Amino acid sequence: MLTQSATLATNERIQALRANGVPVTHLAFGEAGLPVAPEIAAALAAAAGRNSYGPTAGIPELRAAAAGYFDRRGLPTAPGQIVAGPGSKPLLHALLSVLPGDVVLPRPSWVSYAAQASLLGKEVVWVPVPEGSGGVPDPALLGPALVAARARGLRPGILVLTLPDNPTGALAGASTVRAVCEIAAEHGLMVISDEIYRDLAHEPGSVLSPAEIIPERTVVTTGLSKATALGGWRLGVCRLPEAELTARLIGVASEIWSNPTTPVQVAAAYVLAEPEPVRAFVAAGLGLHRAVVRAAYETVLAAGAGCPAPGGGFYLYPDLEAARGNASSRADRDAAGSGAGLGGAADLAELLLERYRIGVLPGSAFGDDPRGLRFRLATSLLYGDTDEQRWTALRSTDPARLPWIAEALARLGTAVAELTGKGHGDLR
Amino acid sequence: MLTQSATLATNERIQALRANGVPVTHLAFGEAGLPVAPEIAAALAAAAGRNSYGPTAGIPELRAAAAGYFDRRGLPTAPGQIVAGPGSKPLLHALLSVLPGDVVLPRPSWVSYAAQASLLGKEVVWVPVPEGSGGVPDPALLGPALVAARARGLRPGILVLTLPDNPTGALAGASTVRAVCEIAAEHGLMVISDEIYRDLAHEPGSVLSPAEIIPERTVVTTGLSKATALGGWRLGVCRLPEAELTARLIGVASEIWSNPTTPVQVAAAYVLAEPEPVRAFVAAGLGLHRAVVRAAYETVLAAGAGCPAPGGGFYLYPDLEAARGNASSRADRDAAGSGAGLGGAADLAELLLERYRIGVLPGSAFGDDPRGLRFRLATSLLYGDTDEQRWTALRSTDPARLPWIAEALARLGTAVAELTGKGHGDLR
Repeated sequence: MLTQSATLATNERIQALRANGVPVTHLAFGEAGLPVAPEIAAALAAAAGRNSYGPTAGIPELRAAAAGYFDRRGLPTAPGQIVAGPGSKPLLHALLSVLPGDVVLPRPSWVSYAAQASLLGKEVVWVPVPEGSGGVPDPALLGPALVAARARGLRPGILVLTLPDNPTGALAGASTVRAVCEIAAEHGLMVISDEIYRDLAHEPGSVLSPAEIIPERTVVTTGLSKATALGGWRLGVCRLPEAELTARLIGVASEIWSNPTTPVQVAAAYVLAEPEPVRAFVAAGLGLHRAVVRAAYETVLAAGAGCPAPGGGFYLYPDLEAARGNASSRADRDAAGSGAGLGGAADLAELLLERYRIGVLPGSAFGDDPRGLRFRLATSLLYGDTDEQRWTALRSTDPARLPWIAEALARLGTAVAELTGKGHGDLR
Repeated sequence: MLTQSATLATNERIQALRANGVPVTHLAFGEAGLPVAPEIAAALAAAAGRNSYGPTAGIPELRAAAAGYFDRRGLPTAPGQIVAGPGSKPLLHALLSVLPGDVVLPRPSWVSYAAQASLLGKEVVWVPVPEGSGGVPDPALLGPALVAARARGLRPGILVLTLPDNPTGALAGASTVRAVCEIAAEHGLMVISDEIYRDLAHEPGSVLSPAEIIPERTVVTTGLSKATALGGWRLGVCRLPEAELTARLIGVASEIWSNPTTPVQVAAAYVLAEPEPVRAFVAAGLGLHRAVVRAAYETVLAAGAGCPAPGGGFYLYPDLEAARGNASSRADRDAAGSGAGLGGAADLAELLLERYRIGVLPGSAFGDDPRGLRFRLATSLLYGDTDEQRWTALRSTDPARLPWIAEALARLGTAVAELTGKGHGDLR
């Protein structure tokens, strides 16, 4: 079973190193790295007296606010189409449970999709993500992969897309999304469109949702964890296409989690109504994420790595294939202790942590080929260790030049350049 | 599949009646019916700036506080034995997932155990609960039931006990718990001891936990939903016997929910440290629950019903078998429209709602024989519709005589007496 053990193990390693006084630049975790907007904190604090369970699908004001949120994104939505959960992760798990069939996933894709499928006894049909597809399956490969899967006795039923993508940080273009949706419809798949990074698309309005193309086959999930940086609050919502599926989801939700934390639901209703303070906070966060992820992108390119161009969110997915053939790199000489070079993604992540004190997740954690030399960086974890640093970053017009961010980017560049053999002198 | 559809459908019916201006005494839902203690609300409000995911098992201060909570109840516990979740319900689901084997349940037992087992593809081995056993399986029947289940090809692996019990409101005595635990150990079962009502045992110190008898085989679950009435906040914790099981639970938790709401975890650490304001609130709540559930117990007995004696929490589980043979009762004449009488628990619950405007859950929702005339009442829902009424009830020395509670109890007595044919004149 593929599990988040890579994430958990990496986090434990980093905590242990830090506890021993070893400074580690922890870029391994998918956290937005921002403080709480004070208006949102006030909304939660004001709701601290709300202790009732409330409806499983969410309190009426939250469902209405979420419907309005989707309305404003070109997806007309009734409150009855909304189900809230304690994070979009439990919603995804419950959706994979109630939707029939095996799960079709881009390779690589977010760690938990495949792990949840496995918990539910479902098989995964992996479909490669080519350069430039923005993290969704190659339309040319999707149909044949489905046919081959059925020939192997699998029953592909659900396609999960992430727009913008995690781990690649890319965003699929409209024509790719359309092509993938057409194939999904032809093959009778339901699509789960994980749009938790939607409001962090680097070009506003650049996300085309499958719900606009095949509305009757698409469930959209989102949450407060990324754009408003409230990961620890655990609040997700999903938009469902029809009542019978909604009822089944609510039935499962009532047995697994009852309802999301009620005071958080009240705060979420405030957030999803998108009043001016929330819009301003999200805009500032987007500006920061975009500036830093682009600076990091330029850094790793200059250091000799390949990398999909960032299109949304705060991840990069560098490819250090160049390091493999680089016999003169220290990595090649040291990594396996025998001069045999880097064996794959796990070795690479280990080397980045042990030698360079940079914590990343290997591509293999996302289902990618373990022999590949790819890893995911969360550049959002560069903004600072204190709320003061994070507010400074949020308010900066050139955050990549803030000393603590610039220093970490320089170390990242040095590490990548040493591994690719491009040397330190080439770097910014 | 057994689901909470009975709960959901009953709640919907009651909401619809109320929306049409029909007053319904809603006693169908397992909510503690109390306001939030102001000190606990303040702890949540103060933590509104905490947005980090944090460790899957819970923040260190919560795990330490929960360990101390169990220490004070005679169960020495290390913080590493604690896993927190967004309610004890998701913890139970995850535990049923990681513990091997089919699930052995008392009949009746809480609605979600069997539903969760079904979601996980596990079979349920039902074992009857005799009069006086306090809601745990009859020790004399448990062993033979396990043997018979294995003969049918099942693999009983997990026994769930609820101490004090839901739905019966009873509490198993020490000798019964010991006998059941011995049989569980003989047959190689793990025990999940759901002790969410433990601090509401009507006699303090009257709960014997299986973790005291077969510690290596027992997982204890609890949460903030009952004694501190924070159901809507969604916070549960469990105490695990060994590290490998703990690691597996954390692995599943990381894929399904990540972590409970972080600000709620901070407040839970405050609650589980049991400072004086929390102890005083829990003591006041216990006094109120005990007084009202006992008054309701006397009411239903006087009205001719059978009922297990309440031992903890705020539920009653009356048995109206007397109504079945009572040819002169209105129920017998009206219920089925043909003079055939009440067909079972669902008919009875329907009649209580339609004719008497009292919402209850039929015994069948808890896996009980649908032909039986048993139902569950949550007397905690009598405390009032406003926080003002609830605080008045909490502070009252004789809450059952508060007008809104006394009136509802009188109507309950009238309804039961009419059904059993005992007539109104017999009642208090």
